[in-house]
Amino acid sequence: MVKAAVIGGTGYAGVELVRILLGHPHAELTMITSRQYAGRPFSDIYPAMARIVNLTCQAFSEEAVSEAAEVIFTALPHKASMGVVPGLIDRGKRVIDLSADFRFKDPALYEAWYEPHQAKDLLKTAVYGLPEIYFDDIQKASLVGNPGCYPTSVLLPLLPLIKAPFVDADSIVADSKSGTSGAGRSVSLATHFCEVNEGFKAYKVAEHRHNPEMDEVLSLFAGRTIRMTFTPHLVPMTRGMLTTIYVGLKEDVSTRDVASYLDSFYADKPFVRICPRGRFPNTMYVRGTNYCDIGFQVAEQTKRLVLISAIDNLVKGASGQAVQNMNIMLGLPETAGLDQIPFPL
Amino acid sequence: MVKAAVIGGTGYAGVELVRILLGHPHAELTMITSRQYAGRPFSDIYPAMARIVNLTCQAFSEEAVSEAAEVIFTALPHKASMGVVPGLIDRGKRVIDLSADFRFKDPALYEAWYEPHQAKDLLKTAVYGLPEIYFDDIQKASLVGNPGCYPTSVLLPLLPLIKAPFVDADSIVADSKSGTSGAGRSVSLATHFCEVNEGFKAYKVAEHRHNPEMDEVLSLFAGRTIRMTFTPHLVPMTRGMLTTIYVGLKEDVSTRDVASYLDSFYADKPFVRICPRGRFPNTMYVRGTNYCDIGFQVAEQTKRLVLISAIDNLVKGASGQAVQNMNIMLGLPETAGLDQIPFPL
Amino acid sequence: MVKAAVIGGTGYAGVELVRILLGHPHAELTMITSRQYAGRPFSDIYPAMARIVNLTCQAFSEEAVSEAAEVIFTALPHKASMGVVPGLIDRGKRVIDLSADFRFKDPALYEAWYEPHQAKDLLKTAVYGLPEIYFDDIQKASLVGNPGCYPTSVLLPLLPLIKAPFVDADSIVADSKSGTSGAGRSVSLATHFCEVNEGFKAYKVAEHRHNPEMDEVLSLFAGRTIRMTFTPHLVPMTRGMLTTIYVGLKEDVSTRDVASYLDSFYADKPFVRICPRGRFPNTMYVRGTNYCDIGFQVAEQTKRLVLISAIDNLVKGASGQAVQNMNIMLGLPETAGLDQIPFPL
Amino acid sequence: MVKAAVIGGTGYAGVELVRILLGHPHAELTMITSRQYAGRPFSDIYPAMARIVNLTCQAFSEEAVSEAAEVIFTALPHKASMGVVPGLIDRGKRVIDLSADFRFKDPALYEAWYEPHQAKDLLKTAVYGLPEIYFDDIQKASLVGNPGCYPTSVLLPLLPLIKAPFVDADSIVADSKSGTSGAGRSVSLATHFCEVNEGFKAYKVAEHRHNPEMDEVLSLFAGRTIRMTFTPHLVPMTRGMLTTIYVGLKEDVSTRDVASYLDSFYADKPFVRICPRGRFPNTMYVRGTNYCDIGFQVAEQTKRLVLISAIDNLVKGASGQAVQNMNIMLGLPETAGLDQIPFPL
Repeated sequence: MVKAAVIGGTGYAGVELVRILLGHPHAELTMITSRQYAGRPFSDIYPAMARIVNLTCQAFSEEAVSEAAEVIFTALPHKASMGVVPGLIDRGKRVIDLSADFRFKDPALYEAWYEPHQAKDLLKTAVYGLPEIYFDDIQKASLVGNPGCYPTSVLLPLLPLIKAPFVDADSIVADSKSGTSGAGRSVSLATHFCEVNEGFKAYKVAEHRHNPEMDEVLSLFAGRTIRMTFTPHLVPMTRGMLTTIYVGLKEDVSTRDVASYLDSFYADKPFVRICPRGRFPNTMYVRGTNYCDIGFQVAEQTKRLVLISAIDNLVKGASGQAVQNMNIMLGLPETAGLDQIPFPL
Repeated sequence: MVKAAVIGGTGYAGVELVRILLGHPHAELTMITSRQYAGRPFSDIYPAMARIVNLTCQAFSEEAVSEAAEVIFTALPHKASMGVVPGLIDRGKRVIDLSADFRFKDPALYEAWYEPHQAKDLLKTAVYGLPEIYFDDIQKASLVGNPGCYPTSVLLPLLPLIKAPFVDADSIVADSKSGTSGAGRSVSLATHFCEVNEGFKAYKVAEHRHNPEMDEVLSLFAGRTIRMTFTPHLVPMTRGMLTTIYVGLKEDVSTRDVASYLDSFYADKPFVRICPRGRFPNTMYVRGTNYCDIGFQVAEQTKRLVLISAIDNLVKGASGQAVQNMNIMLGLPETAGLDQIPFPL
Repeated sequence: MVKAAVIGGTGYAGVELVRILLGHPHAELTMITSRQYAGRPFSDIYPAMARIVNLTCQAFSEEAVSEAAEVIFTALPHKASMGVVPGLIDRGKRVIDLSADFRFKDPALYEAWYEPHQAKDLLKTAVYGLPEIYFDDIQKASLVGNPGCYPTSVLLPLLPLIKAPFVDADSIVADSKSGTSGAGRSVSLATHFCEVNEGFKAYKVAEHRHNPEMDEVLSLFAGRTIRMTFTPHLVPMTRGMLTTIYVGLKEDVSTRDVASYLDSFYADKPFVRICPRGRFPNTMYVRGTNYCDIGFQVAEQTKRLVLISAIDNLVKGASGQAVQNMNIMLGLPETAGLDQIPFPL
Repeated sequence: MVKAAVIGGTGYAGVELVRILLGHPHAELTMITSRQYAGRPFSDIYPAMARIVNLTCQAFSEEAVSEAAEVIFTALPHKASMGVVPGLIDRGKRVIDLSADFRFKDPALYEAWYEPHQAKDLLKTAVYGLPEIYFDDIQKASLVGNPGCYPTSVLLPLLPLIKAPFVDADSIVADSKSGTSGAGRSVSLATHFCEVNEGFKAYKVAEHRHNPEMDEVLSLFAGRTIRMTFTPHLVPMTRGMLTTIYVGLKEDVSTRDVASYLDSFYADKPFVRICPRGRFPNTMYVRGTNYCDIGFQVAEQTKRLVLISAIDNLVKGASGQAVQNMNIMLGLPETAGLDQIPFPL
């Protein structure tokens, strides 16, 4: 049993890590830290966990965390992460960071969208934690920058096709729709029940910080600069993210051709399901799971490919993927702790 | 006071017509027909209307309807409409049809997506009821084909820009998200509460019947064939439609340039609100109103324009627009009956 | 046209007052104050109101408000109200206060549940603004304490029956369920979208401040001390309140007997609808309206009467009732501005 | 591994059985029957189950089911169950029936509320499957009548207290609120999304069929006739049931006294959690679990005890409890397959 700690365990990504780790057959959750709730039983904050989690939230201490665990999940806001991660890495810990701080290869890009980076050296060795692409690097990594939820939902359907000869990589538009849990647990008017319920909106149009993240990964993977247009939207529901991607086609291509690219790329990947033709993903079908469902349709008249992905933003979009990364880093079965039967409704 | 009847008054578009007409200062609702509920008080079907609507649902009879009203709203399924409308037109009535039956200029296009048309002659004189474009024609029309909800939400932001020199009209992608009331009142598993709630999905990807409708209108308006890629999605809420449109730019264009096109086009249109820059529409802000809110953003890096519209699918997307058409046909103030103060939440 | 001002106009009760007053045929909204948003256009705070409300939020000033309006709605938190209301009354204004500060006859009761009262003298002349009971007093009042939402939903079904010989007034249990807008616009974890959505809970069980309010009114009306057991619950929806009341029966009583009490009490009351037997209220049927729908059932086996009421907590439970009170105070038609056709869905 | 079959596996209780049995360490799901979907892969009906469930729905055949399984869950509508269960029992199978057909001891009571009973003999040996009360009988049972969701939520908080000297057993009122999944998967206007969403209503007031069921169990347990007043309500959410129970007190009793009754009764019961004082259950905290959370408050002024319970109507209210019964019948650990970590949101 590997000992694991969650830093920032009372936010939504944090509690989801707690949930998954508790059911993990090869991991033991030994510590949860929380600045806001230090000293309080975790099940006070999340009464669903009464009788299940007996841990009390701790204030963060590098020393105590390092003694308690060998794998550490940092579920902190960006900037806070880079203050904490280097010390843990120095102590030889394996770290999976859920913030944006270690997702970028190019520090200038991070700094253009976030703020001055205080641990640039670590960017060189940090691995982008998208296991369907970087499995081998993750195996050897000490530090994984866990992908953003939007990039996960955009990259998984796109990457298998980005180098296909029929794809116009300069034509990509990604239109994403996220449940409200993606905005986290911090209260704000934008996440106040009556301001979200029965409304639907776009936000940060063509200006979201996940845009450069996915552009960088896509460009590195394709070996050329790719920039896409990206618009996020807020859905009045708790969990789930659906992304619709539009790709121009340079040649006539059949649905079967597209299917073969996707099918072969994901043939042995446990968490990607390609929908049968004519069926499209629904966030309901992946809720609470680490699956990414992918569907597609060729729009023949307009020579475009429409790709659709669905994930649970808190699982494959955050904490499930983080545990998947842990499994790979430690040589455990990739699906360990992540094979819970989904709720059909 | 003009006498008005609603044919098919117990569906969602029908009851919304009833609601609006009841509050209309120049109209009197004299008859509601319903195949399913003939003989029952309307307020039995919609208890919200107790004490407010005293009409009893009637079975449809051309003669009775024609005696009761001079303006007739047909809120029937497609095909049913074309069985009823010609007789009413023959009797000299003004008809606003909410089905797809009289929206197309080209009967072949209708027949390719729907079924054999039984009243092709009327297609020649029927006017497409988008008042922001066809005001003059609507003034003179006997028969108006009221636009679909998706086309309304797509066409209003696009039309002012479609002929602009910087717009690549072959690059258009429209990604729409609709509340569940758009699926109507007929029960089905797809609209069963537990199958919709807390889920988000795409459907009829690149195959929705509203796609040729908007392509035809756009092409006629632009004077050249335009085809766009269109994907509708279902939002777990009752009312509202948000559409995000992506348009390739052939030249550098500033936000200000785009604003001037929209502002001048809609300067004197009472039901279109252009959002201040940096603000984007939310379906919540138009709920229950006949407004179409339009926002936009230039994505400079990718040379695309993102247009966003929000409407209430049952009002500007159906029954409100139908009453707006009636007002224009009869020379009444365009906003009569449609100036209800919106609900802020 | 009577000039009206809303003090605290950016909370949910405030904006609902703004909505109703804007559509009022005999009132003109001349000022909106807001501590938080002073200086900002009202439609910045509520974009739904763009083009409709042109007022800018003002900081409160007794002098400016008094110059601008003759009727003043104070939609402030309790305690804040009693700091503002006396000065306005001194200037001869008519005030309808939506806080708890002027609802109690007995200052000790207020102080036991709230805090020290700073304007006890006004309690003597303030009238409890439940028009179905205190119409005559409201006509003559300068200051109305507008009832709480829960008391409105409990008192309207109970009052007609409380003196009936078959009612055991010591047996009353009221179980209320409120939409989330009742918690107001101030952000908190308890009203954070993901903490409310898809959950249902009770709160302040037998300890809610509205309990003594309704006990006092009921006791004064019945001429004897009555205390009921009251439990509020939170429903994951925006608007609406449904209350289920259980009353022990001292004698056999038929549904018809109960109906006759309710029917005669409310025969000429415009905002109370008694449901036909076998039908029960649904908050959906009163949404956006000033109606209180009342249904009932005699549970013969257990000799209890079950009364059920539905209101829109923001309208009949707050701002609609406040405008109803204004109408009565000024001798206007009781329904003026409150006869908007309801939304069927 | 015990072989289990689900008869009627595509309804909501059925699929929930499938979900739980798939994760059960000692059970193997060998057959799913469905009249409506016979011949179709189960994951066609529930795409969430793609890659997870490989079974195809079968038409029901007593012989085939009996060969495939030794424990059989019948998740059929009432009446259909009693046509199927006797044959399975004759073949020596263990049956857990989720309909109402085998819940009553008194056939006359069943017939008064349902219809003629065709398998009365089995009523004598069938055990009411509320394990917190009838554990010993369930251990020996061949046929378990799985309790209704409402009775489970009412009986668990009430039973420990019903014989307490301070409880007035003739004063009981139970006010229940259920998520919409309780209405099942059959489509109807009453469960159409737009008719449920943003509404709250009572139904079958004092006339619900679960009322006699709970009265019978309570009476048998208390050794005297008890009848309570019961009102069910519909909550616009998918899962969850909260019940608020009001009990008259014959003596002064403290919160501590009540706590001691509940605590001692449930000391060793794995699925009942008594809330700390001042905290009340929320359906969110039990969603997806087999827990029943119980909170309470003494209303001193009115001498009543308020009990509040929360369950997931599909788990402890149906399929989870059914699996709990199976575990007990087979001598497996009571919590086997039911210890999934709950979703915190």
